[in-house]
Amino acid sequence: MDRVKTGIAQLDKMLGGGFVSGDAVLVAGGTGTGKTTLGLQYLVNGTTQFGENGIFVTFEQMPNQIYRDAKNFGWDLKRLEQENKLKLICTSPELLLETHGTKHLLDEPIRQVKPRRIVIDSLSNLAMYIEEKEVRKEAHRLLNYFKTKQISSLCTWEAPGTIGEGMWLTDVGLSRVADCIILMRLVEIDSTMRKALVVLKLRGSDHDKALREYDITSQGITVAQPFAGFESIITGVPRRVLLPRSF
Amino acid sequence: MDRVKTGIAQLDKMLGGGFVSGDAVLVAGGTGTGKTTLGLQYLVNGTTQFGENGIFVTFEQMPNQIYRDAKNFGWDLKRLEQENKLKLICTSPELLLETHGTKHLLDEPIRQVKPRRIVIDSLSNLAMYIEEKEVRKEAHRLLNYFKTKQISSLCTWEAPGTIGEGMWLTDVGLSRVADCIILMRLVEIDSTMRKALVVLKLRGSDHDKALREYDITSQGITVAQPFAGFESIITGVPRRVLLPRSF
Amino acid sequence: MDRVKTGIAQLDKMLGGGFVSGDAVLVAGGTGTGKTTLGLQYLVNGTTQFGENGIFVTFEQMPNQIYRDAKNFGWDLKRLEQENKLKLICTSPELLLETHGTKHLLDEPIRQVKPRRIVIDSLSNLAMYIEEKEVRKEAHRLLNYFKTKQISSLCTWEAPGTIGEGMWLTDVGLSRVADCIILMRLVEIDSTMRKALVVLKLRGSDHDKALREYDITSQGITVAQPFAGFESIITGVPRRVLLPRSF
Amino acid sequence: MDRVKTGIAQLDKMLGGGFVSGDAVLVAGGTGTGKTTLGLQYLVNGTTQFGENGIFVTFEQMPNQIYRDAKNFGWDLKRLEQENKLKLICTSPELLLETHGTKHLLDEPIRQVKPRRIVIDSLSNLAMYIEEKEVRKEAHRLLNYFKTKQISSLCTWEAPGTIGEGMWLTDVGLSRVADCIILMRLVEIDSTMRKALVVLKLRGSDHDKALREYDITSQGITVAQPFAGFESIITGVPRRVLLPRSF
Amino acid sequence: MDRVKTGIAQLDKMLGGGFVSGDAVLVAGGTGTGKTTLGLQYLVNGTTQFGENGIFVTFEQMPNQIYRDAKNFGWDLKRLEQENKLKLICTSPELLLETHGTKHLLDEPIRQVKPRRIVIDSLSNLAMYIEEKEVRKEAHRLLNYFKTKQISSLCTWEAPGTIGEGMWLTDVGLSRVADCIILMRLVEIDSTMRKALVVLKLRGSDHDKALREYDITSQGITVAQPFAGFESIITGVPRRVLLPRSF
Amino acid sequence: MDRVKTGIAQLDKMLGGGFVSGDAVLVAGGTGTGKTTLGLQYLVNGTTQFGENGIFVTFEQMPNQIYRDAKNFGWDLKRLEQENKLKLICTSPELLLETHGTKHLLDEPIRQVKPRRIVIDSLSNLAMYIEEKEVRKEAHRLLNYFKTKQISSLCTWEAPGTIGEGMWLTDVGLSRVADCIILMRLVEIDSTMRKALVVLKLRGSDHDKALREYDITSQGITVAQPFAGFESIITGVPRRVLLPRSF
Repeated sequence: MDRVKTGIAQLDKMLGGGFVSGDAVLVAGGTGTGKTTLGLQYLVNGTTQFGENGIFVTFEQMPNQIYRDAKNFGWDLKRLEQENKLKLICTSPELLLETHGTKHLLDEPIRQVKPRRIVIDSLSNLAMYIEEKEVRKEAHRLLNYFKTKQISSLCTWEAPGTIGEGMWLTDVGLSRVADCIILMRLVEIDSTMRKALVVLKLRGSDHDKALREYDITSQGITVAQPFAGFESIITGVPRRVLLPRSF
Repeated sequence: MDRVKTGIAQLDKMLGGGFVSGDAVLVAGGTGTGKTTLGLQYLVNGTTQFGENGIFVTFEQMPNQIYRDAKNFGWDLKRLEQENKLKLICTSPELLLETHGTKHLLDEPIRQVKPRRIVIDSLSNLAMYIEEKEVRKEAHRLLNYFKTKQISSLCTWEAPGTIGEGMWLTDVGLSRVADCIILMRLVEIDSTMRKALVVLKLRGSDHDKALREYDITSQGITVAQPFAGFESIITGVPRRVLLPRSF
Repeated sequence: MDRVKTGIAQLDKMLGGGFVSGDAVLVAGGTGTGKTTLGLQYLVNGTTQFGENGIFVTFEQMPNQIYRDAKNFGWDLKRLEQENKLKLICTSPELLLETHGTKHLLDEPIRQVKPRRIVIDSLSNLAMYIEEKEVRKEAHRLLNYFKTKQISSLCTWEAPGTIGEGMWLTDVGLSRVADCIILMRLVEIDSTMRKALVVLKLRGSDHDKALREYDITSQGITVAQPFAGFESIITGVPRRVLLPRSF
Repeated sequence: MDRVKTGIAQLDKMLGGGFVSGDAVLVAGGTGTGKTTLGLQYLVNGTTQFGENGIFVTFEQMPNQIYRDAKNFGWDLKRLEQENKLKLICTSPELLLETHGTKHLLDEPIRQVKPRRIVIDSLSNLAMYIEEKEVRKEAHRLLNYFKTKQISSLCTWEAPGTIGEGMWLTDVGLSRVADCIILMRLVEIDSTMRKALVVLKLRGSDHDKALREYDITSQGITVAQPFAGFESIITGVPRRVLLPRSF
Repeated sequence: MDRVKTGIAQLDKMLGGGFVSGDAVLVAGGTGTGKTTLGLQYLVNGTTQFGENGIFVTFEQMPNQIYRDAKNFGWDLKRLEQENKLKLICTSPELLLETHGTKHLLDEPIRQVKPRRIVIDSLSNLAMYIEEKEVRKEAHRLLNYFKTKQISSLCTWEAPGTIGEGMWLTDVGLSRVADCIILMRLVEIDSTMRKALVVLKLRGSDHDKALREYDITSQGITVAQPFAGFESIITGVPRRVLLPRSF
Repeated sequence: MDRVKTGIAQLDKMLGGGFVSGDAVLVAGGTGTGKTTLGLQYLVNGTTQFGENGIFVTFEQMPNQIYRDAKNFGWDLKRLEQENKLKLICTSPELLLETHGTKHLLDEPIRQVKPRRIVIDSLSNLAMYIEEKEVRKEAHRLLNYFKTKQISSLCTWEAPGTIGEGMWLTDVGLSRVADCIILMRLVEIDSTMRKALVVLKLRGSDHDKALREYDITSQGITVAQPFAGFESIITGVPRRVLLPRSF
């Protein structure tokens, strides 16, 4: 199976080498978990390390902010755009969903950049503009559009419960549309908000099942060791337990 | 009682030999629990090990993806289709539910393949397209259609709560329609998302009551030993306890 | 007080000899708890052990399935029907609720079989077909119809929360209509789904208050000892505790 | 302050001598907690022990059942009715709420029996028949009607959560209408459903604050000692704790 | 800052001397926590100990009951009314909210009594009569009316969750309108319903943060020591813990 | 990156030097957590310590109250207004959102004061006046208006759950609009309501992840050490745990 590397060493390892080429990836997480950073890093690494161009679609932020944020991680998006390796598209959900005859808003950018990777940041924004019943259908249509163009897509999803609550991916039926689901979560440990990441699903392939700590450093996201000695990490408020080996 | 073997040794044992012939089976689970894999494995094993043909009905995935996913497990669906032992049907919920006079969309495929097994992946998709009040009635009608044709059916059901929440099968009254219910669940143990499976119901027959660990290997689903030393496994966030024998 | 024995020794003992003659009994439980089995066993024992005829009303299953399921427990319903001791009625909620002038769908069967016992499997199905506000009124009317005919009735109720959730009998106000309420629940203990039963209410009479384990054997339901050493059994996910006598 | 004794020794003691004369009492509890029994006992004791006549208003049960239930406790309601000391009124919520000019359905019975006590079993039934917004207003009007006639009233309220859930008295604003609130609850202890009772409120007077165990015996309700060694009794699923004095 | 003393010694101490003059105080609590008693005590102490007149506005109780309840605490409201130091106003929410031109229902009573203190018992009743969206606006208007007249106001709020549930002050946005918020809660400790009080907010001033036990004695409310040795008191069902000093 | 110092030493340290210039900051917290105080302190420190003018927009309080509250902390807002360094604007949400052609209500004040900082107290009030679907869009428009004027904004958000409940920032999609999110929470420890603060998000920059205790002193907010020895602080009802170093 062809792999699309994220360039985040430990994450690629968790995924058995990277995302599967052409797959639709869902990155779900609460506020401040770094979903946008992961998306940018995936695209930047794509072009700088693996020679794969990318498109970043956003609905909210002003481009300058994204350029600035990226720069903090040492990613010069503007240069990548000038080199025609990357394209930032600030649009509205309505425009993205509309099709004019057989034409789609992204047809032209895709023709120009010839991306192997695309990031939609975020599917939640899109979900706010359409009927709940339509969300899955529209998401499905959009992701299929990418698949037919053989572009690997990564969509972020803002999970509603910040902390101490379950995370509902399936409310609008999105989990089935995704080939791969990564969950990111703030976790309170020792009076500190730490970050946990887990691959919940990877269609047609084995993957690491551990809840691993990750961090957002000046170089972007770094994934580290699994947590140890806790229960209920996934709820965001784990309990410390004596490990079996301690007995 | 005639048994329809899944070919997953430990699961057949849990079921007292396999599903009961002609029964409607519900496989409920959250994202990434392997419901689709179980469905495919059931059909593939049916034709390769037990000489029983099958039909796989899906509403979402493009056929190529299913072929690819199956191949990862060493299942050559295309060959099985060429040998007229299996048929993949990609359709829409509307088309599946419609009847033209006394004719049903599946009449022709059933006539061709003469299946003993059918998989609907998933009933949740179907439920998204019809009124909540109608779901049970329509599901009932569909499952009865299979029963009158003496085909054993297996439907998957995407449970809404990913983790740390109860699983509601009965919201739309589906649990009564099913003769057999299997629950699959991601379970956080030692900072790892493991997988638990339990047979909740098997009409007219005894069955194993243990919550067993299972895994999705390169050969498909393998069911292993019951968990030990935990409470509240079914919630997805178990607590480790001292076992009584430890006292 | 006249008692209607279930023929399940330990359960009759819990009830102080059996249900009270003419009472309306509610058997509430989740999926796979054996409510239908309890209903059938109550009727079969009635005719074979106590010389009391019975009627079984169902809304969903095809008769053949019920005959088959019963046979697994060694209950030959067809023979009992031929001997005019039992009658299975497969009907729709609408038909059951309708009255034509002073005539009721069950008038004729009741005249024929002269039942002392009747089972409605299940009131939940009935509740799905009528307005929430009407459920209690209609249930009340139906149960009174049986009372005026001096028939002891047993209705099953599919509790919505499968596991790890409260059980709401009173959502539609049914608990007051019932003279006796039996709760059946799947309970996770030592990684196994075991079964707990408790008599919540028995109007005008003392009863056993213990949460007892029960099993569905090849002879039907058998009620055993109370659980010991657990807290919160009724939630379905009990905690093991040190018993006071252990101190 | 004038006291209206319930005749249940320990309960009267908890209340500082009994209910306050003319007060509106709310007895809230789930299924099978004995609210109706408490109401009947209050009336029967009133007439037999304290020379105070009473009226029992019910919306659901057929009179015969109430006579029978009462008889199980040794209470001969029929004789009390013949002696014009008690009156059972089976009516509908609509009829109870209607007023014809200045006339009320209960005017005549009150004139006949000259009751000092009245029981409405239950206010929940009444609440089912009127708009949620109107419940408090109508309850208020009804209770004031009793107050102006200087009759002490006791209303039962069927709390929706059977077990393991909070009890919502205030959803429809009833708690303020009541001068006295008694809470009755099934409580799981040592795998047994025991019963707890607590006086939550007694306007203008001190009262016992303990959660006491009570039982329904062949003589009616008996209140016993407070529970000891538990936390969260009020939730219905208490935790056993080491008492401070055990340290 | 000018202080308005409640006359409840420990509470005034918690508040740093009393409420701030002209402030709007919200007293939130469940059933049976003594909110009305606190309101009356605040007014009676005002006139008898601090020479400040007061008005008590109620929507529900008949005046006689309030006089009676007050008398139990030794408060002779009638005499205070005759001395023109206090005024009880029984009105409806509608009348209180209406304004006739520039005139308000309370203009005349305020002119007569010249109150420094006013109690609205309760804002919950008022909230029941107006649209949810309007509650905050109307409450705001009413409280501002008092502020412009330089009257310190105290409103009671019936929190919906009796026990074991969170308390929602902010559902209708009232918490921002209040300058001071006092929370009163029934708390189950050692099988007894005890009472906890905490000052949640005191705008522009420091205050005691402890959860203190209080009692309703024959002299009214008395506030005592903070609880010790418990966690989660605020939920109403605390857990006993070993205190750090016990280690 | 240009930093906008709050002047609260420990908080600036947590933020890596202060808010990022031009960012939109969200301060979310329940009742009595001091959100308004933080907003005022941010503005006052801006003008007195860093030479940056500010505007404070409020929807509810009467100006006098704010002047008084500020004075308690030693902040003389009136003098700052006379020196044209600060401006308090009491307006309505409607007026703030309206635009007259290209003119905005704040155009004139901004021209006058030339603020580098603006506080909106609170966004919750604003959210009460507009359709839920519009909240994010309007907030976004308002915050962008500030960004284009290069003003750093700080909005307060009244989190609905006072205690023991999750905090939902994302209900109306606000978390994505904010570049920085600070959470303030009342936390019950040792029977006392203490205060916890955490930086949940800081776009494009590293930040302290600890849950720190803070206090509201006579000089305003002071941030102290992280909590130690507790789990689930973020829920408001933490559990004390033995720290790993205690083993």
